[in-house]
Amino acid sequence: MGTTQLESVPEPKYWHLKTVIGEALDSDFAVGEILPNERDLAARFGVARATLRQALEQLELEGRLQRRRGVGTTVAPPRMGVDVSTTQHSWPGSAQDAWQSVDCATAVPPAAVARLLETGAEEETHILRRLRVSHGQQVAAELLYVPASTVPELSAIDAPSGPARSRAVLRELQRLDLDGQDRAVELGSARADDAKELDRLPGSPVLLVTTRYVSEGRTAAVSVATYRADTCRLTFGDSGDVEISHDQERRAS
Amino acid sequence: MGTTQLESVPEPKYWHLKTVIGEALDSDFAVGEILPNERDLAARFGVARATLRQALEQLELEGRLQRRRGVGTTVAPPRMGVDVSTTQHSWPGSAQDAWQSVDCATAVPPAAVARLLETGAEEETHILRRLRVSHGQQVAAELLYVPASTVPELSAIDAPSGPARSRAVLRELQRLDLDGQDRAVELGSARADDAKELDRLPGSPVLLVTTRYVSEGRTAAVSVATYRADTCRLTFGDSGDVEISHDQERRAS
Repeated sequence: MGTTQLESVPEPKYWHLKTVIGEALDSDFAVGEILPNERDLAARFGVARATLRQALEQLELEGRLQRRRGVGTTVAPPRMGVDVSTTQHSWPGSAQDAWQSVDCATAVPPAAVARLLETGAEEETHILRRLRVSHGQQVAAELLYVPASTVPELSAIDAPSGPARSRAVLRELQRLDLDGQDRAVELGSARADDAKELDRLPGSPVLLVTTRYVSEGRTAAVSVATYRADTCRLTFGDSGDVEISHDQERRAS
Repeated sequence: MGTTQLESVPEPKYWHLKTVIGEALDSDFAVGEILPNERDLAARFGVARATLRQALEQLELEGRLQRRRGVGTTVAPPRMGVDVSTTQHSWPGSAQDAWQSVDCATAVPPAAVARLLETGAEEETHILRRLRVSHGQQVAAELLYVPASTVPELSAIDAPSGPARSRAVLRELQRLDLDGQDRAVELGSARADDAKELDRLPGSPVLLVTTRYVSEGRTAAVSVATYRADTCRLTFGDSGDVEISHDQERRAS
Protein backbone atom coordinates (compact mmCIF):
# COMPACT_ATOMS: atom_id res chain seq x y z
CA MET A 1 0.00 0.00 0.00
CA GLY A 2 3.09 2.21 0.00
CA THR A 3 2.69 3.50 -3.55
CA THR A 4 0.22 6.34 -3.15
CA GLN A 5 0.66 9.97 -2.21
CA LEU A 6 -2.02 9.49 0.41
CA GLU A 7 0.45 8.35 3.03
CA SER A 8 1.66 11.67 4.36
CA VAL A 9 2.20 10.49 7.94
CA PRO A 10 5.79 9.57 8.86
CA GLU A 11 6.03 5.91 9.87
CA PRO A 12 8.05 4.65 12.84
CA LYS A 13 11.43 3.04 12.18
CA TYR A 14 10.30 -0.54 12.86
CA TRP A 15 7.53 0.02 10.33
CA HIS A 16 9.98 0.67 7.52
CA LEU A 17 12.02 -2.31 8.74
CA LYS A 18 8.86 -4.43 8.63
CA THR A 19 8.40 -3.54 4.95
CA VAL A 20 12.05 -4.31 4.19
CA ILE A 21 11.86 -7.67 5.96
CA GLY A 22 8.55 -8.39 4.22
CA GLU A 23 10.26 -7.93 0.86
CA ALA A 24 13.13 -10.15 1.99
CA LEU A 25 10.62 -12.83 2.95
CA ASP A 26 9.22 -12.68 -0.58
CA SER A 27 12.58 -12.84 -2.32
CA ASP A 28 14.90 -14.83 -0.05
CA PHE A 29 12.71 -17.19 2.00
CA ALA A 30 10.31 -20.02 1.26
CA VAL A 31 7.04 -20.70 3.10
CA GLY A 32 7.76 -22.78 6.19
CA GLU A 33 11.43 -21.79 6.26
CA ILE A 34 12.85 -20.98 9.71
CA LEU A 35 14.16 -17.42 10.14
CA PRO A 36 17.70 -16.79 11.44
CA ASN A 37 17.89 -15.87 15.13
CA GLU A 38 17.24 -12.28 16.21
CA ARG A 39 20.89 -11.39 16.64
CA ASP A 40 21.77 -12.44 13.10
CA LEU A 41 18.69 -10.71 11.67
CA ALA A 42 19.41 -7.49 13.59
CA ALA A 43 22.96 -7.56 12.22
CA ARG A 44 21.75 -8.33 8.69
CA PHE A 45 19.43 -5.31 8.67
CA GLY A 46 21.67 -3.10 10.80
CA VAL A 47 19.07 -2.39 13.49
CA ALA A 48 18.73 -2.78 17.25
CA ARG A 49 17.24 -6.01 18.61
CA ALA A 50 14.28 -4.08 20.07
CA THR A 51 13.44 -2.54 16.67
CA LEU A 52 13.75 -5.92 15.00
CA ARG A 53 11.46 -7.51 17.58
CA GLN A 54 8.78 -4.85 16.98
CA ALA A 55 8.94 -5.46 13.24
CA LEU A 56 8.68 -9.24 13.72
CA GLU A 57 5.66 -8.77 15.99
CA GLN A 58 3.96 -6.72 13.29
CA LEU A 59 4.68 -9.35 10.66
CA GLU A 60 3.27 -12.02 12.97
CA LEU A 61 0.12 -9.92 13.52
CA GLU A 62 -0.27 -9.64 9.76
CA GLY A 63 0.11 -13.37 9.24
CA ARG A 64 3.49 -13.18 7.48
CA LEU A 65 5.36 -14.99 10.26
CA GLN A 66 4.44 -17.76 12.66
CA ARG A 67 6.08 -18.26 16.04
CA ARG A 68 5.92 -21.92 16.93
CA ARG A 69 7.02 -23.40 20.23
CA GLY A 70 10.13 -25.51 19.84
CA VAL A 71 10.44 -24.61 16.16
CA GLY A 72 11.14 -20.88 16.12
CA THR A 73 9.88 -18.20 13.76
CA THR A 74 8.86 -19.50 10.34
CA VAL A 75 7.57 -17.92 7.15
CA ALA A 76 3.77 -18.34 7.14
CA PRO A 77 1.78 -19.53 4.13
CA PRO A 78 -0.89 -17.15 2.81
CA ARG A 79 -3.95 -17.06 5.04
CA MET A 80 -6.71 -19.41 3.96
CA GLY A 81 -10.16 -18.10 3.15
CA VAL A 82 -12.75 -19.65 5.49
CA ASP A 83 -16.38 -19.08 4.56
CA VAL A 84 -18.55 -17.66 7.35
CA SER A 85 -21.33 -16.29 5.16
CA THR A 86 -24.93 -16.55 6.30
CA THR A 87 -26.29 -16.82 2.76
CA GLN A 88 -26.76 -20.57 3.25
CA HIS A 89 -29.75 -20.87 5.57
CA SER A 90 -29.19 -24.03 7.57
CA TRP A 91 -28.95 -25.20 11.15
CA PRO A 92 -25.68 -26.31 12.70
CA GLY A 93 -25.19 -29.99 11.95
CA SER A 94 -26.81 -29.85 8.51
CA ALA A 95 -25.25 -31.62 5.53
CA GLN A 96 -23.22 -28.57 4.43
CA ASP A 97 -21.92 -27.99 7.97
CA ALA A 98 -18.13 -27.79 8.27
CA TRP A 99 -18.15 -28.48 12.03
CA GLN A 100 -17.45 -31.69 13.95
CA SER A 101 -19.00 -32.35 17.36
CA VAL A 102 -16.54 -33.39 20.04
CA ASP A 103 -18.50 -33.04 23.26
CA CYS A 104 -21.79 -31.98 24.83
CA ALA A 105 -22.59 -30.84 28.35
CA THR A 106 -25.69 -29.50 30.03
CA ALA A 107 -25.27 -26.36 32.12
CA VAL A 108 -26.60 -22.91 32.84
CA PRO A 109 -25.27 -20.57 30.12
CA PRO A 110 -23.38 -17.33 30.82
CA ALA A 111 -25.74 -14.46 31.72
CA ALA A 112 -25.36 -12.65 28.39
CA VAL A 113 -25.99 -15.85 26.41
CA ALA A 114 -29.06 -16.51 28.54
CA ARG A 115 -30.23 -12.95 27.84
CA LEU A 116 -29.75 -13.43 24.11
CA LEU A 117 -31.52 -16.77 24.25
CA GLU A 118 -34.35 -15.01 26.08
CA THR A 119 -34.38 -17.88 28.54
CA GLY A 120 -34.45 -17.63 32.30
CA ALA A 121 -30.94 -17.16 33.69
CA GLU A 122 -31.22 -20.60 35.28
CA GLU A 123 -32.54 -22.54 32.28
CA GLU A 124 -30.65 -25.71 31.52
CA THR A 125 -28.87 -25.43 28.17
CA HIS A 126 -27.15 -28.00 26.01
CA ILE A 127 -23.64 -26.71 25.35
CA LEU A 128 -22.05 -28.38 22.35
CA ARG A 129 -18.32 -28.23 21.77
CA ARG A 130 -17.45 -28.39 18.07
CA LEU A 131 -14.34 -28.03 15.96
CA ARG A 132 -13.91 -26.81 12.41
CA VAL A 133 -11.24 -28.15 10.05
CA SER A 134 -10.44 -26.36 6.81
CA HIS A 135 -7.76 -27.22 4.25
CA GLY A 136 -6.73 -30.03 6.63
CA GLN A 137 -6.09 -27.63 9.51
CA GLN A 138 -7.89 -26.94 12.78
CA VAL A 139 -9.19 -23.41 12.19
CA ALA A 140 -11.87 -22.85 14.81
CA ALA A 141 -13.42 -24.09 18.06
CA GLU A 142 -17.04 -23.42 18.95
CA LEU A 143 -19.42 -23.44 21.88
CA LEU A 144 -23.00 -23.90 20.64
CA TYR A 145 -25.75 -23.10 23.16
CA VAL A 146 -29.10 -24.82 22.68
CA PRO A 147 -31.70 -24.28 25.44
CA ALA A 148 -33.49 -27.44 26.61
CA SER A 149 -36.76 -25.66 25.70
CA THR A 150 -35.64 -25.44 22.06
CA VAL A 151 -35.38 -29.24 21.76
CA PRO A 152 -38.10 -30.54 24.14
CA GLU A 153 -38.34 -33.85 22.26
CA LEU A 154 -34.74 -34.72 23.06
CA SER A 155 -34.62 -38.02 24.88
CA ALA A 156 -32.53 -38.00 28.04
CA ILE A 157 -32.11 -41.74 27.91
CA ASP A 158 -30.03 -42.43 24.80
CA ALA A 159 -26.65 -40.75 24.51
CA PRO A 160 -26.52 -38.82 27.80
CA SER A 161 -23.28 -37.05 26.81
CA GLY A 162 -20.39 -36.79 24.34
CA PRO A 163 -20.46 -36.59 20.52
CA ALA A 164 -23.49 -38.90 20.27
CA ARG A 165 -25.41 -36.52 22.54
CA SER A 166 -24.29 -33.59 20.35
CA ARG A 167 -25.61 -35.31 17.25
CA ALA A 168 -28.92 -36.00 19.00
CA VAL A 169 -29.28 -32.28 19.88
CA LEU A 170 -28.40 -31.25 16.31
CA ARG A 171 -30.91 -33.76 14.91
CA GLU A 172 -33.63 -32.13 17.00
CA LEU A 173 -32.62 -28.67 15.70
CA GLN A 174 -33.13 -29.82 12.11
CA ARG A 175 -36.83 -30.34 12.89
CA LEU A 176 -37.34 -26.61 13.49
CA ASP A 177 -37.87 -23.88 10.87
CA LEU A 178 -34.88 -21.53 10.67
CA ASP A 179 -36.17 -17.97 10.20
CA GLY A 180 -32.79 -16.31 10.01
CA GLN A 181 -29.37 -15.80 11.56
CA ASP A 182 -27.33 -12.85 12.77
CA ARG A 183 -23.57 -12.95 12.75
CA ALA A 184 -20.84 -10.71 14.12
CA VAL A 185 -17.04 -10.88 14.06
CA GLU A 186 -14.72 -9.14 16.49
CA LEU A 187 -11.24 -9.33 17.95
CA GLY A 188 -10.72 -11.50 21.01
CA SER A 189 -8.07 -13.44 22.87
CA ALA A 190 -7.89 -17.23 22.92
CA ARG A 191 -9.17 -18.95 26.06
CA ALA A 192 -6.86 -21.66 27.35
CA ASP A 193 -9.04 -24.52 26.09
CA ASP A 194 -9.50 -22.95 22.64
CA ALA A 195 -5.81 -22.09 22.48
CA LYS A 196 -4.94 -25.73 23.08
CA GLU A 197 -7.35 -26.97 20.39
CA LEU A 198 -6.02 -24.41 17.91
CA ASP A 199 -2.33 -24.85 18.77
CA ARG A 200 -2.02 -21.24 19.96
CA LEU A 201 -0.79 -19.73 23.20
CA PRO A 202 -3.56 -18.67 25.64
CA GLY A 203 -4.36 -15.00 25.02
CA SER A 204 -3.31 -15.07 21.36
CA PRO A 205 -5.42 -12.76 19.19
CA VAL A 206 -8.38 -14.62 17.69
CA LEU A 207 -11.43 -13.73 15.61
CA LEU A 208 -14.66 -14.32 17.54
CA VAL A 209 -17.71 -15.09 15.42
CA THR A 210 -21.03 -14.95 17.29
CA THR A 211 -24.13 -16.33 15.58
CA ARG A 212 -27.74 -16.12 16.69
CA TYR A 213 -30.16 -18.62 15.15
CA VAL A 214 -33.76 -17.40 15.06
CA SER A 215 -36.74 -19.76 14.84
CA GLU A 216 -40.43 -18.94 15.25
CA GLY A 217 -39.57 -15.41 16.27
CA ARG A 218 -37.23 -16.33 19.09
CA THR A 219 -33.54 -17.10 19.48
CA ALA A 220 -33.32 -20.90 19.30
CA ALA A 221 -29.54 -21.23 19.58
CA VAL A 222 -26.37 -19.17 19.95
CA SER A 223 -22.91 -20.07 18.66
CA VAL A 224 -19.66 -18.47 19.82
CA ALA A 225 -16.82 -19.59 17.53
CA THR A 226 -13.13 -18.82 18.00
CA TYR A 227 -11.15 -18.68 14.74
CA ARG A 228 -7.37 -18.60 14.41
CA ALA A 229 -6.48 -15.04 13.41
CA ASP A 230 -3.00 -15.95 12.19
CA THR A 231 -4.02 -18.48 9.54
CA CYS A 232 -7.61 -17.49 8.68
CA ARG A 233 -9.25 -14.87 6.54
CA LEU A 234 -13.02 -14.97 7.11
CA THR A 235 -14.95 -14.63 3.87
CA PHE A 236 -18.57 -13.77 3.28
CA GLY A 237 -20.69 -11.95 0.73
CA ASP A 238 -22.56 -13.05 -2.34
CA SER A 239 -19.98 -14.44 -4.73
CA GLY A 240 -17.55 -16.57 -2.75
CA ASP A 241 -14.03 -15.89 -1.62
CA VAL A 242 -11.83 -12.84 -1.97
CA GLU A 243 -8.47 -13.50 -3.57
CA ILE A 244 -6.65 -10.66 -1.87
CA SER A 245 -5.62 -9.57 1.59
CA HIS A 246 -3.26 -6.95 2.99
CA ASP A 247 -0.65 -9.51 3.91
CA GLN A 248 -0.79 -11.13 0.50
CA GLU A 249 -0.29 -7.78 -1.19
CA ARG A 250 3.15 -7.55 0.38
CA ARG A 251 3.80 -11.12 -0.71
CA ALA A 252 3.08 -10.21 -4.33
CA SER A 253 5.75 -9.64 -6.99
CA MET B 1 -17.93 -18.86 29.34
CA GLY B 2 -16.51 -20.29 32.58
CA THR B 3 -19.60 -22.25 33.58
CA THR B 4 -19.29 -25.48 31.62
CA GLN B 5 -17.47 -28.72 32.31
CA LEU B 6 -15.93 -28.42 28.86
CA GLU B 7 -13.04 -26.31 30.08
CA SER B 8 -10.69 -28.98 31.35
CA VAL B 9 -7.49 -27.12 30.48
CA PRO B 10 -5.83 -25.24 33.35
CA GLU B 11 -5.64 -21.52 32.65
CA PRO B 12 -2.55 -19.39 33.32
CA LYS B 13 -2.53 -17.18 36.44
CA TYR B 14 -3.02 -13.90 34.58
CA TRP B 15 -6.08 -15.43 32.96
CA HIS B 16 -7.80 -15.94 36.28
CA LEU B 17 -6.72 -12.45 37.28
CA LYS B 18 -8.23 -11.11 34.05
CA THR B 19 -11.59 -12.65 35.00
CA VAL B 20 -11.38 -11.21 38.51
CA ILE B 21 -10.54 -7.74 37.19
CA GLY B 22 -13.30 -8.07 34.60
CA GLU B 23 -15.80 -8.67 37.39
CA ALA B 24 -14.39 -5.71 39.31
CA LEU B 25 -14.85 -3.54 36.21
CA ASP B 26 -18.51 -4.53 36.14
CA SER B 27 -19.14 -3.89 39.81
CA ASP B 28 -16.78 -1.10 40.88
CA PHE B 29 -16.05 0.97 37.77
CA ALA B 30 -18.07 3.04 35.32
CA VAL B 31 -17.49 3.22 31.56
CA GLY B 32 -14.86 5.87 30.85
CA GLU B 33 -13.49 5.75 34.38
CA ILE B 34 -9.69 5.84 34.69
CA LEU B 35 -8.11 2.79 36.34
CA PRO B 36 -5.69 3.19 39.28
CA ASN B 37 -2.01 2.92 38.35
CA GLU B 38 -0.42 -0.50 37.97
CA ARG B 39 1.29 -0.45 41.35
CA ASP B 40 -1.98 0.19 43.18
CA LEU B 41 -3.84 -2.38 41.10
CA ALA B 42 -1.14 -5.01 41.65
CA ALA B 43 -1.38 -4.36 45.38
CA ARG B 44 -5.19 -4.46 45.36
CA PHE B 45 -5.24 -7.87 43.67
CA GLY B 46 -2.10 -9.15 45.39
CA VAL B 47 -0.22 -10.01 42.20
CA ALA B 48 3.10 -9.15 40.55
CA ARG B 49 3.19 -6.16 38.18
CA ALA B 50 4.09 -8.47 35.26
CA THR B 51 1.05 -10.67 35.89
CA LEU B 52 -1.17 -7.60 36.19
CA ARG B 53 0.19 -6.19 32.95
CA GLN B 54 -0.57 -9.44 31.10
CA ALA B 55 -4.14 -9.40 32.40
CA LEU B 56 -4.61 -5.74 31.39
CA GLU B 57 -3.30 -6.52 27.90
CA GLN B 58 -5.85 -9.31 27.56
CA LEU B 59 -8.68 -7.02 28.68
CA GLU B 60 -7.55 -4.42 26.16
CA LEU B 61 -7.49 -7.05 23.40
CA GLU B 62 -11.05 -8.00 24.35
CA GLY B 63 -12.25 -4.42 24.27
CA ARG B 64 -12.83 -4.12 28.01
CA LEU B 65 -10.10 -1.53 28.54
CA GLN B 66 -8.75 1.30 26.42
CA ARG B 67 -5.24 2.69 26.72
CA ARG B 68 -5.28 6.32 25.68
CA ARG B 69 -2.18 8.51 25.37
CA GLY B 70 -2.10 11.18 28.06
CA VAL B 71 -5.21 9.79 29.70
CA GLY B 72 -4.23 6.35 30.97
CA THR B 73 -6.21 3.12 31.02
CA THR B 74 -9.96 3.61 31.01
CA VAL B 75 -12.97 1.30 31.16
CA ALA B 76 -14.20 0.84 27.58
CA PRO B 77 -17.84 1.09 26.55
CA PRO B 78 -19.36 -2.01 24.90
CA ARG B 79 -18.15 -2.43 21.34
CA MET B 80 -20.49 -0.97 18.76
CA GLY B 81 -21.97 -3.11 16.03
CA VAL B 82 -20.90 -1.82 12.60
CA ASP B 83 -22.72 -3.32 9.62
CA VAL B 84 -20.45 -4.73 6.90
CA SER B 85 -23.00 -7.02 5.27
CA THR B 86 -23.06 -7.38 1.49
CA THR B 87 -26.80 -7.99 1.36
CA GLN B 88 -27.31 -4.42 0.15
CA HIS B 89 -26.10 -4.39 -3.48
CA SER B 90 -24.77 -0.93 -4.10
CA TRP B 91 -21.63 0.80 -5.27
CA PRO B 92 -19.46 2.84 -2.92
CA GLY B 93 -20.82 6.38 -2.81
CA SER B 94 -24.46 5.34 -3.16
CA ALA B 95 -27.14 6.93 -1.02
CA GLN B 96 -26.91 4.29 1.73
CA ASP B 97 -23.11 4.55 1.87
CA ALA B 98 -21.69 5.25 5.33
CA TRP B 99 -18.34 6.49 3.95
CA GLN B 100 -17.06 10.03 3.44
CA SER B 101 -14.49 10.85 0.77
CA VAL B 102 -11.51 12.84 2.01
CA ASP B 103 -9.00 12.56 -0.82
CA CYS B 104 -8.26 11.08 -4.22
CA ALA B 105 -4.98 10.34 -5.96
CA THR B 106 -4.02 8.62 -9.19
CA ALA B 107 -1.28 6.03 -8.95
CA VAL B 108 -0.23 2.52 -9.89
CA PRO B 109 -1.88 0.15 -7.38
CA PRO B 110 0.04 -2.44 -5.31
CA ALA B 111 0.81 -5.58 -7.33
CA ALA B 112 -1.78 -7.77 -5.58
CA VAL B 113 -4.50 -5.16 -6.02
CA ALA B 114 -3.58 -4.89 -9.70
CA ARG B 115 -3.80 -8.69 -9.97
CA LEU B 116 -7.23 -8.69 -8.36
CA LEU B 117 -8.35 -5.84 -10.60
CA GLU B 118 -7.09 -7.90 -13.54
CA THR B 119 -5.44 -4.76 -14.85
CA GLY B 120 -1.88 -4.46 -16.11
CA ALA B 121 0.54 -3.87 -13.24
CA GLU B 122 1.18 -0.39 -14.60
CA GLU B 123 -2.42 0.72 -15.16
CA GLU B 124 -3.28 4.09 -13.66
CA THR B 125 -5.79 3.68 -10.86
CA HIS B 126 -7.88 6.21 -8.97
CA ILE B 127 -7.18 5.66 -5.27
CA LEU B 128 -9.87 7.17 -3.07
CA ARG B 129 -9.28 7.76 0.61
CA ARG B 130 -12.50 7.52 2.62
CA LEU B 131 -13.46 7.52 6.27
CA ARG B 132 -16.38 5.89 8.05
CA VAL B 133 -18.10 7.42 11.08
CA SER B 134 -20.49 5.35 13.19
CA HIS B 135 -22.28 6.37 16.40
CA GLY B 136 -20.39 9.68 16.11
CA GLN B 137 -16.99 7.97 16.14
CA GLN B 138 -14.33 7.42 13.48
CA VAL B 139 -14.47 3.64 13.06
CA ALA B 140 -12.68 2.92 9.80
CA ALA B 141 -10.39 4.27 7.07
CA GLU B 142 -10.49 2.95 3.51
CA LEU B 143 -8.47 2.90 0.32
CA LEU B 144 -10.76 2.35 -2.66
CA TYR B 145 -9.04 1.37 -5.92
CA VAL B 146 -10.86 2.20 -9.16
CA PRO B 147 -8.93 1.53 -12.40
CA ALA B 148 -9.06 4.33 -14.97
CA SER B 149 -10.47 1.76 -17.43
CA THR B 150 -13.48 1.22 -15.13
CA VAL B 151 -14.51 4.88 -15.42
CA PRO B 152 -13.37 5.92 -18.94
CA GLU B 153 -15.90 8.75 -19.09
CA LEU B 154 -14.29 10.50 -16.14
CA SER B 155 -13.25 13.98 -17.17
CA ALA B 156 -9.72 14.92 -16.25
CA ILE B 157 -10.52 18.61 -16.43
CA ASP B 158 -12.97 19.22 -13.60
CA ALA B 159 -11.89 18.35 -10.06
CA PRO B 160 -8.36 17.03 -10.71
CA SER B 161 -7.97 15.90 -7.09
CA GLY B 162 -9.38 15.92 -3.56
CA PRO B 163 -12.90 15.11 -2.32
CA ALA B 164 -14.53 16.62 -5.44
CA ARG B 165 -12.45 14.25 -7.58
CA SER B 166 -13.52 11.34 -5.34
CA ARG B 167 -17.17 12.21 -5.82
CA ALA B 168 -16.66 12.41 -9.59
CA VAL B 169 -15.14 8.90 -9.60
CA LEU B 170 -17.97 7.55 -7.43
CA ARG B 171 -20.57 9.18 -9.72
CA GLU B 172 -19.06 7.33 -12.67
CA LEU B 173 -19.20 4.02 -10.75
CA GLN B 174 -22.96 4.46 -10.21
CA ARG B 175 -23.44 4.25 -14.01
CA LEU B 176 -22.21 0.63 -14.06
CA ASP B 177 -24.20 -2.51 -13.25
CA LEU B 178 -22.99 -4.14 -10.03
CA ASP B 179 -23.04 -7.93 -10.47
CA GLY B 180 -21.87 -8.79 -6.99
CA GLN B 181 -19.31 -8.27 -4.25
CA ASP B 182 -16.93 -10.46 -2.30
CA ARG B 183 -15.86 -9.52 1.19
CA ALA B 184 -13.29 -10.86 3.64
CA VAL B 185 -12.27 -9.85 7.16
CA GLU B 186 -8.93 -10.61 8.79
CA LEU B 187 -6.58 -9.42 11.50
CA GLY B 188 -4.07 -6.73 10.59
CA SER B 189 -1.99 -3.98 12.14
CA ALA B 190 -2.73 -0.29 11.69
CA ARG B 191 -0.57 1.58 9.18
CA ALA B 192 0.70 4.92 10.47
CA ASP B 193 -1.76 6.98 8.41
CA ASP B 194 -4.74 4.79 9.36
CA ALA B 195 -3.61 4.78 12.99
CA LYS B 196 -3.61 8.57 13.02
CA GLU B 197 -7.08 8.79 11.47
CA LEU B 198 -8.44 6.23 13.94
CA ASP B 199 -6.66 7.62 17.01
CA ARG B 200 -4.67 4.43 17.48
CA LEU B 201 -0.95 3.75 17.77
CA PRO B 202 0.74 2.49 14.59
CA GLY B 203 0.76 -1.30 14.65
CA SER B 204 -2.36 -1.59 16.80
CA PRO B 205 -4.47 -4.63 15.95
CA VAL B 206 -7.16 -3.76 13.40
CA LEU B 207 -9.79 -5.64 11.40
CA LEU B 208 -9.08 -5.47 7.67
CA VAL B 209 -12.12 -5.76 5.41
CA THR B 210 -11.33 -6.32 1.73
CA THR B 211 -14.14 -5.96 -0.81
CA ARG B 212 -14.12 -6.80 -4.49
CA TYR B 213 -16.82 -5.17 -6.64
CA VAL B 214 -17.69 -7.17 -9.75
CA SER B 215 -19.29 -5.61 -12.82
CA GLU B 216 -19.81 -7.15 -16.26
CA GLY B 217 -17.85 -10.22 -15.21
CA ARG B 218 -14.72 -8.36 -14.13
CA THR B 219 -13.45 -6.71 -10.97
CA ALA B 220 -14.37 -3.04 -11.32
CA ALA B 221 -13.08 -1.83 -7.95
CA VAL B 222 -11.35 -3.05 -4.80
CA SER B 223 -11.74 -1.62 -1.31
CA VAL B 224 -9.35 -2.23 1.59
CA ALA B 225 -10.89 -0.89 4.81
CA THR B 226 -9.20 -0.73 8.21
CA TYR B 227 -11.61 -0.95 11.15
CA ARG B 228 -10.78 -0.22 14.80
CA ALA B 229 -10.67 -3.61 16.52
CA ASP B 230 -10.98 -2.14 20.00
CA THR B 231 -14.31 -0.36 19.54
CA CYS B 232 -15.95 -2.24 16.64
CA ARG B 233 -17.83 -5.49 16.26
CA LEU B 234 -18.45 -6.14 12.56
CA THR B 235 -21.97 -7.40 11.91
CA PHE B 236 -23.39 -9.13 8.86
CA GLY B 237 -25.99 -11.76 8.08
CA ASP B 238 -29.65 -11.60 7.20
CA SER B 239 -31.44 -10.12 10.17
CA GLY B 240 -29.43 -7.23 11.47
CA ASP B 241 -27.09 -6.94 14.41
CA VAL B 242 -26.07 -9.47 17.03
CA GLU B 243 -26.70 -8.33 20.57
CA ILE B 244 -23.96 -10.39 22.13
CA SER B 245 -20.18 -10.67 22.12
CA HIS B 246 -17.60 -12.40 24.28
CA ASP B 247 -16.54 -9.19 25.93
CA GLN B 248 -20.12 -8.25 26.67
CA GLU B 249 -20.75 -11.60 28.26
CA ARG B 250 -18.23 -10.81 30.94
CA ARG B 251 -19.88 -7.45 31.33
CA ALA B 252 -23.18 -9.14 32.12
CA SER B 253 -24.57 -9.68 35.61
